[in-house]
Amino acid sequence: MIGTPILPEIRELIEKRNFSALQRLFNDWLPVDLAELISDLPESEQAILFRLLPKDVATETFEYLELDAQQNLLNALTQKDVTHILNSMSADDRTALLEELPGTVVQELLKLLSFKEFKIAKTLLAYAEGSVGRLMSPDYLSVKMDWDINQVLEYIRTFGHESETLNVIYAVDDHGKLVGEILARDLLLSLPDRKVSDIVSDEDKMITLTATQDQQDALEAFKRYDKVALPVVDSNGYLIGIVTVDDMLDVAEEEETEDIQKFGGIEALDEPYIDVPLLQLVRNRAVWLVVLFLGEMLTASAMTYFEGELAKAIVLATFIPLIISSGGNSGSQAATLIIRSLSLGEITIHDWWNVMRRELLSGLMLGGILGTIGIFRVVFWAMLLSHYTTTWLLIGFTVGLSLVGIVLWGTIAGSMLPLLLKRMGLDPATSSAPFVATLVDVTGIIIYFSVASLLLKGSLL
Amino acid sequence: MIGTPILPEIRELIEKRNFSALQRLFNDWLPVDLAELISDLPESEQAILFRLLPKDVATETFEYLELDAQQNLLNALTQKDVTHILNSMSADDRTALLEELPGTVVQELLKLLSFKEFKIAKTLLAYAEGSVGRLMSPDYLSVKMDWDINQVLEYIRTFGHESETLNVIYAVDDHGKLVGEILARDLLLSLPDRKVSDIVSDEDKMITLTATQDQQDALEAFKRYDKVALPVVDSNGYLIGIVTVDDMLDVAEEEETEDIQKFGGIEALDEPYIDVPLLQLVRNRAVWLVVLFLGEMLTASAMTYFEGELAKAIVLATFIPLIISSGGNSGSQAATLIIRSLSLGEITIHDWWNVMRRELLSGLMLGGILGTIGIFRVVFWAMLLSHYTTTWLLIGFTVGLSLVGIVLWGTIAGSMLPLLLKRMGLDPATSSAPFVATLVDVTGIIIYFSVASLLLKGSLL
Repeated sequence: MIGTPILPEIRELIEKRNFSALQRLFNDWLPVDLAELISDLPESEQAILFRLLPKDVATETFEYLELDAQQNLLNALTQKDVTHILNSMSADDRTALLEELPGTVVQELLKLLSFKEFKIAKTLLAYAEGSVGRLMSPDYLSVKMDWDINQVLEYIRTFGHESETLNVIYAVDDHGKLVGEILARDLLLSLPDRKVSDIVSDEDKMITLTATQDQQDALEAFKRYDKVALPVVDSNGYLIGIVTVDDMLDVAEEEETEDIQKFGGIEALDEPYIDVPLLQLVRNRAVWLVVLFLGEMLTASAMTYFEGELAKAIVLATFIPLIISSGGNSGSQAATLIIRSLSLGEITIHDWWNVMRRELLSGLMLGGILGTIGIFRVVFWAMLLSHYTTTWLLIGFTVGLSLVGIVLWGTIAGSMLPLLLKRMGLDPATSSAPFVATLVDVTGIIIYFSVASLLLKGSLL
Repeated sequence: MIGTPILPEIRELIEKRNFSALQRLFNDWLPVDLAELISDLPESEQAILFRLLPKDVATETFEYLELDAQQNLLNALTQKDVTHILNSMSADDRTALLEELPGTVVQELLKLLSFKEFKIAKTLLAYAEGSVGRLMSPDYLSVKMDWDINQVLEYIRTFGHESETLNVIYAVDDHGKLVGEILARDLLLSLPDRKVSDIVSDEDKMITLTATQDQQDALEAFKRYDKVALPVVDSNGYLIGIVTVDDMLDVAEEEETEDIQKFGGIEALDEPYIDVPLLQLVRNRAVWLVVLFLGEMLTASAMTYFEGELAKAIVLATFIPLIISSGGNSGSQAATLIIRSLSLGEITIHDWWNVMRRELLSGLMLGGILGTIGIFRVVFWAMLLSHYTTTWLLIGFTVGLSLVGIVLWGTIAGSMLPLLLKRMGLDPATSSAPFVATLVDVTGIIIYFSVASLLLKGSLL
């Protein structure tokens, strides 16, 4: 069975306690689909179904379970089952589970591990969250340069069952120092009497990771070099683990979520939206909301400064939201484009002048378009309500000119701010859409009233 | 040489026309790094350097080049070189190049292909842009169920050199119908006298793609099933190609860029920011900017409606930007969270009530926080300027209560709109940050003045 499980059918079998039928059904399922089914069940039923799984897929199914379900099963299963699962699951998935549990629980669970697995788990947990070390698996195969392919194949058949991948294996020297990689491809293509040294990759063309690097670096390396696995070495070049490409799609997703949340003006959440406790959700949002609110208070101050003008021409007030929001929107657009281009490496801070020139022109054109619509709106509306006087033409031009200025300023601010943050060594994504909008709102009011003073002095003001 | 090339050194060698030194240097470089170097050079120099490449890496380097550089080289190289490159590059990369060229150029280039490659290229180009067909490679190996492993290995050594991957090969029946997959892992682990049928995957557990599916579906399948390659079959189950995981990281990046740009209120760009012609850039931004502007015009109408109140209490106008922007910001936050959760499958539209409850509570708390700050701002400011009267307390409460209402409304609108769009079969990402902000601005003004009428009737109004 591929894809979404047929839940009603399953539900009926569970209600009827028809375990043998369930067991037969599960034989045809993939671990990932079994895991989805179990994750979707109420906690009380998860362990019942998990125990029905064929022995050979139980651990793999556990690896695919959602974190909540994993934690629930750790409590609900017998110590014997938990011991078996923890010792047989792959090291990187185990790290991902352990890092989410409270320290005391982790200590209890570590005691269940064999000495070998205990050492591995301890080592991997010692690396920082979000580092390559946390993604790393110590289950790889390494061979010597002077072996022939027959020896390698023999070695693989004996020791390869535990290896995280056999798509690539590694050549090390007598001290365990990484000297090259051997692709399954080359192993399969070469004649059995060739030597490892004949088919191994060039040492100085090897791409390696270190365990303390950020997982984002690993993602970049996988994207750039199109590999299915990359070796992790310590500072002396000794092979200590591997990272496989299947983990990278998850890392890409995680990093994307972080970027998008930052851009929406939220402190990135650690967990899925629906699982985050309400108070933490509010906290992650309140931080930025309050900062932006404090910044936006300057608009009130700016407007108080122009209260005299406002009193004389109330009509000016009615266009304020229209005008400042246009600045905010054009600023968000520019910031979005530049932040994304920076993170894709399409532009660097050295391109700032190039960007500035494009944005100056874009801003003028966009401002021109909105300004023209703005003038028409003001003038035709007055005509429509048949209270048109030449003052309305002046108001129209005030609105139109302000729009050109504010859209231009929004565009420039939105595009230059990410570059400036990057230059200062900060994360460009901090210049989120709401942040740029706030910045532009305050200055927008000043631009608007300055244009108004200039054009309406003597008539309305 | 790994990573960023040392450009000044290269520059000097180019100036001096020291081609032999360049050639020696290039011997140690990876194709992807060579491609980056050549892509960064002025167009006039790209062909000169490309011709210096070792023959065995020229095609691979070409595959990694940026599109501009590829197009330039197609013009600058001899017809013989172009013919060689086009015939030897992998079919999926060739499709990606051809799909960006004008039709007449494509016709010319197709003539250079051998009959076999011509047929492949034509077939792949017939699939829609963004479909699995465009990512597909026809270079895979397929074997029969009754072969033994020795026969398979023999077959691989003879025909495997052209195959896009050997990490997985496929078992087909006598008619070419896909019946199972064989992982390099199992091939390496099994004894040579075993049969293909012993190690092949279960037929009903196979994951397959079809050529007309969207590339987003392929990405989902790779994420879910942790595969290094997936087979593509036609409607009758015949194997027609494969898609490999290395292309998926690029697809993920492309889809992410589209999401982020949409969310920033821009029609997604087809090319990198810096390469998009200025007029197209302006067009892609103007569409949404004008739509939002027209929507935001309603704020002016709303404010005109309250002009009487405004004239009596100018002070109310000064808080408008502060109040409506808070609604916009909380709306953007909520929309960001919900859009992302939907696209990750963490929530579905059936969770709407659950989401609504969380957002109601979040909105009340966030509104409470901002409202409290708002009241203090108004009252203490008045005290500070020592013109405090009880009216200021009323104004303070007007601002505070409006903030609660508007933040709550922003949160609800921002979270429900993506769900509503999804329900209507539209893309939830269309409810971009600027769009939600505009929606909330208009209603925000109505909320503000309604609260003001209620609280200030008899004192200020």
